[in-house]
Amino acid sequence: MREPIFDLDSIIRRRGFLWKSFEIYGGTAGFYDYGPTGTLMRNNILNVWRRYFVLEEGFVEIDTPNITPEEVFRASGHLEKFVDIMVECEKCHEVYRADHLIEEFYPEITHRNPETLNPTEMGELFREKGVVCPSCGGELGHPYYFNLMFATTVGRGKNAYLHPETAQGIFVNFQNLYRHFREKMPFGAAQVGRGFRNEISPRQGVIRMREFNMAELEVFVKPDEVHYPGFEAIKNTELTLLDQHGSTHHLGAGEAVENGIIQNEALAYFIARTQAFLLEVGVSRERLRFRQHEKDEMAHYAEDCWDAELLMRFNERENWVECVGIANRSCFDLEQHMKETGADLRAFERFETPREEEVERLKPDLRALGRAFRRNAPAVKEYLESLTPPFPEEIRMEIEGEEVEITPEYYTVEKRIKRVTGRRYIPAVIEPSFGLDRILYGVLQHSFHVGKARDGVDSEGYAILRLPAGIAPYQAAVFPLFNRPGMREMAREIYSSLGSGGIHSLFDDSGSIGKRYARQDEIGTPYCITVDHESLEDSTVTIRDRDSTEQVRVRAKVVPHLIRGLVKGKVKFSDIETGGDFGEYLI
Amino acid sequence: MREPIFDLDSIIRRRGFLWKSFEIYGGTAGFYDYGPTGTLMRNNILNVWRRYFVLEEGFVEIDTPNITPEEVFRASGHLEKFVDIMVECEKCHEVYRADHLIEEFYPEITHRNPETLNPTEMGELFREKGVVCPSCGGELGHPYYFNLMFATTVGRGKNAYLHPETAQGIFVNFQNLYRHFREKMPFGAAQVGRGFRNEISPRQGVIRMREFNMAELEVFVKPDEVHYPGFEAIKNTELTLLDQHGSTHHLGAGEAVENGIIQNEALAYFIARTQAFLLEVGVSRERLRFRQHEKDEMAHYAEDCWDAELLMRFNERENWVECVGIANRSCFDLEQHMKETGADLRAFERFETPREEEVERLKPDLRALGRAFRRNAPAVKEYLESLTPPFPEEIRMEIEGEEVEITPEYYTVEKRIKRVTGRRYIPAVIEPSFGLDRILYGVLQHSFHVGKARDGVDSEGYAILRLPAGIAPYQAAVFPLFNRPGMREMAREIYSSLGSGGIHSLFDDSGSIGKRYARQDEIGTPYCITVDHESLEDSTVTIRDRDSTEQVRVRAKVVPHLIRGLVKGKVKFSDIETGGDFGEYLI
Repeated sequence: MREPIFDLDSIIRRRGFLWKSFEIYGGTAGFYDYGPTGTLMRNNILNVWRRYFVLEEGFVEIDTPNITPEEVFRASGHLEKFVDIMVECEKCHEVYRADHLIEEFYPEITHRNPETLNPTEMGELFREKGVVCPSCGGELGHPYYFNLMFATTVGRGKNAYLHPETAQGIFVNFQNLYRHFREKMPFGAAQVGRGFRNEISPRQGVIRMREFNMAELEVFVKPDEVHYPGFEAIKNTELTLLDQHGSTHHLGAGEAVENGIIQNEALAYFIARTQAFLLEVGVSRERLRFRQHEKDEMAHYAEDCWDAELLMRFNERENWVECVGIANRSCFDLEQHMKETGADLRAFERFETPREEEVERLKPDLRALGRAFRRNAPAVKEYLESLTPPFPEEIRMEIEGEEVEITPEYYTVEKRIKRVTGRRYIPAVIEPSFGLDRILYGVLQHSFHVGKARDGVDSEGYAILRLPAGIAPYQAAVFPLFNRPGMREMAREIYSSLGSGGIHSLFDDSGSIGKRYARQDEIGTPYCITVDHESLEDSTVTIRDRDSTEQVRVRAKVVPHLIRGLVKGKVKFSDIETGGDFGEYLI
Repeated sequence: MREPIFDLDSIIRRRGFLWKSFEIYGGTAGFYDYGPTGTLMRNNILNVWRRYFVLEEGFVEIDTPNITPEEVFRASGHLEKFVDIMVECEKCHEVYRADHLIEEFYPEITHRNPETLNPTEMGELFREKGVVCPSCGGELGHPYYFNLMFATTVGRGKNAYLHPETAQGIFVNFQNLYRHFREKMPFGAAQVGRGFRNEISPRQGVIRMREFNMAELEVFVKPDEVHYPGFEAIKNTELTLLDQHGSTHHLGAGEAVENGIIQNEALAYFIARTQAFLLEVGVSRERLRFRQHEKDEMAHYAEDCWDAELLMRFNERENWVECVGIANRSCFDLEQHMKETGADLRAFERFETPREEEVERLKPDLRALGRAFRRNAPAVKEYLESLTPPFPEEIRMEIEGEEVEITPEYYTVEKRIKRVTGRRYIPAVIEPSFGLDRILYGVLQHSFHVGKARDGVDSEGYAILRLPAGIAPYQAAVFPLFNRPGMREMAREIYSSLGSGGIHSLFDDSGSIGKRYARQDEIGTPYCITVDHESLEDSTVTIRDRDSTEQVRVRAKVVPHLIRGLVKGKVKFSDIETGGDFGEYLI
């Protein structure tokens, strides 16, 4: 039996994880605020993300504006293709996203993924199946494309949009980044920021936000390269893969590449890294899978794409929800920006040893040219020399307004050996793109447990978030057992020492100890420290472990060191010795 | 003599601190990208900011959307008052911000701060002084107000703006935050994010950005409260204050409050904390001052405001640039949102002991009323009882369509003692608001030095950024002395161990050691580690200190511990003992 998620949603609101934005103004659908606990938890997830995808990879992070001029999105294809199909009821004028209307109200009518239809096909499907407005039963109009970018104006008239992905800010900086990496490939650049998507009628809470938090990594690789550095290390990572034909595989990353299920090593590498990251931040392994996009479901820029999907409960149903997309964007974006701007967005590959290539060129017969073309001879010479193979069968050029054939008597075909030191190519891009809000919400669902009633504290059981210690909003809470001279001060002092050690903690002196534990369990605080009568005598305190509810007594002054060691996983709770010093864990 | 700043700007671009955004598309004025080094440095500054203004204060951080519905800005006054005065040349149609036009091209024509004029006054000033278009000499049109918010549309027609400050997202959450702090005052909520300001013609690089990075703190206090907790601790902080009358004071924060130069303890507290923060991230003390706004210069919401100003070079001139604004926003914002929404945005102050207050009320004479008003008597009774002091001289009410006076024969004035347990009030807000881009740019300027030529490396001297070790983009760099078997591997291993210890470092194996040191000095890397011949024999390496250029030899395996200790200021470079263990500094 799954736990009641509606309780979790109340915790999320009540305890300051997420709030509906602008609620005193009636709220605006698709916008959420991160409250105090949510912000801490998201920052913790981001720290792990940066460790995985920037620090440990040796990549870099950059930060580019949200407002992006129109030209960029003309090149990237978003102006034309970042669209949803909408349909409006002709009677009540309610507007629906067509694919969601089918999924939600007519789940039986199509075996195809409705995201793959175009407006005409969608209209036909609606007519054929008698689809009507779910709210009033009225006739639906013609489905149409609607661009999802938020538009604005820079200065007094320059069209711009809020970026729907942070990726374009990285692509347009390719030259700067390539230079930063001293022209060594492959390399990667990450960006953490907001994405914007003007959903017409967002109905799914945090799953469908108009302004959302994303963390993206763009890895530039050689397009025809099969291998990826670091692949060896993740080869044996076990993955659950649902391929584009609908078959599920449980197998190692290496095997998946060998069998052709995953296209190449780079994709497989980032699928495995993504899985490791998700598990570390608290995703449950059983509720995680990687699903390959169907060919006609992919974004316009993608050649292949795998989504990390988390099983979540939403609107009373269980659904696999896309939280990370790991796409092979091929050379698409760089190619488009090159075309649009003329900037050279290519990498140079230096051959290990220079290659000798035979090249043909036309060698003009200067004497013959002079005789036949006189003062036009230099122009003909120059034209012949400019031609590269394959040469046209008939060489023609315009001389003094007339088209003239330059017959083989005026030149010879000469073969030459040329030293080629390398080649220029447009890099391909592997992009793992993370939806942080969905991941955070998924982790909250996966860590939510209902404990049994006990201690007379709670007759109906109580909620525990079994979050990883480093991901929980607060790593510790400090309680004075009673509001008694000495206890409060000692507890305050411990609380301050945790803060100085960079550990986020809470101070709580209200209500029974049982209530205070319950309050911390509800937001996942892994360790609770209590100052009691004994503390005043021998300067020791108790530390209580959230998951086992075990308690140990330690000296007050080692608390910050010990909490840090526990959070970093360097000490196990069950191994704590009361006399321990733990000094090595302090910064 | 000041060092040549233009060289710094080349380092900023070339070494990946800041890039002009969308440069391959010709760039868009007022937008900058943070490159790899800039992003690291900004994240380091932000970590210190969060420690100062969230963790150590016991405050919280929240995160609200950039897109904000129009109603919010109608209430906050931004729709009407977040404007600049613009003026257009009637000949060449170039558009200028009027106050900047004066400051830049006609600095002599006004003794008043041009920010304090309205469009009519500005127009008169222009006519009077014969101000013309600086680019073509043409006549200028009438100055006019221009709203600086970027507009967009949510869904298909809801007006919204990109927020010009993150503060409103905090104010509209007052109830949630007040509840989160269990109704204890004062409390504070911070937000780190983007601000947007549609400057018409931004001409000052990073100083005048259209999309900028800000960190704001809103501290809610009792409006009539003179004292602020924590004030004692900062009382002796020496400040340089330029008051609204133009007088400069060098004195302690406590004295400034006593002398009435700073309005209250809360403002003084955050001025002192801001100074401590700025100095820690690398601002030079001699180039920092706090300037009080003139009365007619303040933002529409502010009652008093002090700017932290940094002395910077820009456009070949030295200027004091506003980097932090510390404002007393009074009750303005909460009051406005209360009016607009009807939500109760008040705090409750419980008196230490309930107060007894004498209250007067009218006691109807029921018999007299019954006789005179018959079936209307109950309505008259109810009306009399509803009145609270001060009572009108003549009490009149409408009875059956006629206005009737209720003369004193129908009631007596009765005095009663009422128990009052507390009062509701709208909190005032103290707001320290930080412009991160300006701070980062200021710190770069203040830390920029030109070293003398030496070692034959550089004949014209070389650049050093003397950034605080924790603020520099990278804390260390690792060099193999030669590209020789063993050295490279050992250097790589040290580089990896730094990464695993959470320390950002660089690996560099190209060019002479002198060149490599110079490359690191240029981006402020405080410690360079070199693997040399001796390293291969005894597993030691040299560490070189950026500022003193001293070197010491230590065991390779203590490097991450030692670097961490140095960065945290727990070890001094001059105190390093070659045999040291430094284990206590490892996480």
